[in-house]
Amino acid sequence: MPHDDDNETPLLADAVRQPDGTPERLRRQIEFIIEADRLKNVFRRSPLLSADRRENDAEHSWHLALMTLVLTEYADEPVDAGKVLALVVVHDLVEIYAGDTFLYDTAAAADQEEREQRAADKLFALLPDDQREHFRALWDEFEARVTPEARFAKAMDRLQPLLLNYGNRGGTWRTPGVTEEDVLARKSVIKDASADLWRYAQDLIHTGAANGWVPRADSRS
Amino acid sequence: MPHDDDNETPLLADAVRQPDGTPERLRRQIEFIIEADRLKNVFRRSPLLSADRRENDAEHSWHLALMTLVLTEYADEPVDAGKVLALVVVHDLVEIYAGDTFLYDTAAAADQEEREQRAADKLFALLPDDQREHFRALWDEFEARVTPEARFAKAMDRLQPLLLNYGNRGGTWRTPGVTEEDVLARKSVIKDASADLWRYAQDLIHTGAANGWVPRADSRS
Repeated sequence: MPHDDDNETPLLADAVRQPDGTPERLRRQIEFIIEADRLKNVFRRSPLLSADRRENDAEHSWHLALMTLVLTEYADEPVDAGKVLALVVVHDLVEIYAGDTFLYDTAAAADQEEREQRAADKLFALLPDDQREHFRALWDEFEARVTPEARFAKAMDRLQPLLLNYGNRGGTWRTPGVTEEDVLARKSVIKDASADLWRYAQDLIHTGAANGWVPRADSRS
Repeated sequence: MPHDDDNETPLLADAVRQPDGTPERLRRQIEFIIEADRLKNVFRRSPLLSADRRENDAEHSWHLALMTLVLTEYADEPVDAGKVLALVVVHDLVEIYAGDTFLYDTAAAADQEEREQRAADKLFALLPDDQREHFRALWDEFEARVTPEARFAKAMDRLQPLLLNYGNRGGTWRTPGVTEEDVLARKSVIKDASADLWRYAQDLIHTGAANGWVPRADSRS
């Protein structure tokens, strides 16, 4: 997928003029909300469980929010669930301009941070200044994984595709070159949020490998 | 769209056995999370702004959550934003079994409540008992619109498709028989949450009508 963080694509909001008399602050907020509609068309690698198509970032983010409501009891440290919800709602927004970077694509990962930083600069600048800083801080918090809320949000982000892959008897685990060890390594951040969920995640991966849905490391050709 | 709240469709989670040793409570929570994947395939009438297709309930719910983060400053009463987020994340889940009821479909509205109550009974029963009651209470709170958080969540639910219709120069406003007055009537619950957002919503509708995107009441044949 091309990354259009450098191009001059007009904003979605440019297509239709806002009503006369819309206050400047509200106009900027609405333009940001409209631009965010694009997240519904950033597609991930993971296939859905409920249909034969790939998942988009917006519905993925919603699924993480729902998981947060169900699973916060497993957090090893107390977390503010409302804060975790805010983090997961915001965490993928930069992919509107930076594109989704596949977890097992090490080449794309090399410039991922730079692409996403530029995308964040561009996207959050649509908001009024105070909110630009607030949303940027939420996204930075998620990425840095220093707070208990960010660690838990990241764990949701890693556990959710694991459920999709397990339910699909492989999914992106079947990517050439990916082994059980790679999956365990990429998912190990779950451990930083919840020992219980990390135990469950390992069970999913080991069971998947036992079922032949992802190759064991020593079976790599 | 058929409503399958009465049928015996197996759960999505039935397709793949959970790993041996998964604790009973966690197994039920995961089965609920997996079943919720179906919300990504409940389609609404509203067209997206960013692509030529209809919106699904999961990405719609995410969009309401993002709007909540941006717009709570306009609430006329103080609201707990984390609570509003929980309400919008949960508010459409029952449509997995009850289907989406189009805002301007008065025939479908007649049995909507009964269909949705049965769907809620079925869906939330997947969860452990304490969470079944918690999620059911969240959904009941949203529907009752008694708390400031529920009123604000409902306002987001009404404002978001207004943005899509306005940006699409009509969208579902062009449904035969729908007039500017109908739209104003259906959207007036926004007023119960925010005078500022209600003023903006009316500006969208009036400007849309002035542009010919929705007929004035006196122009109905």
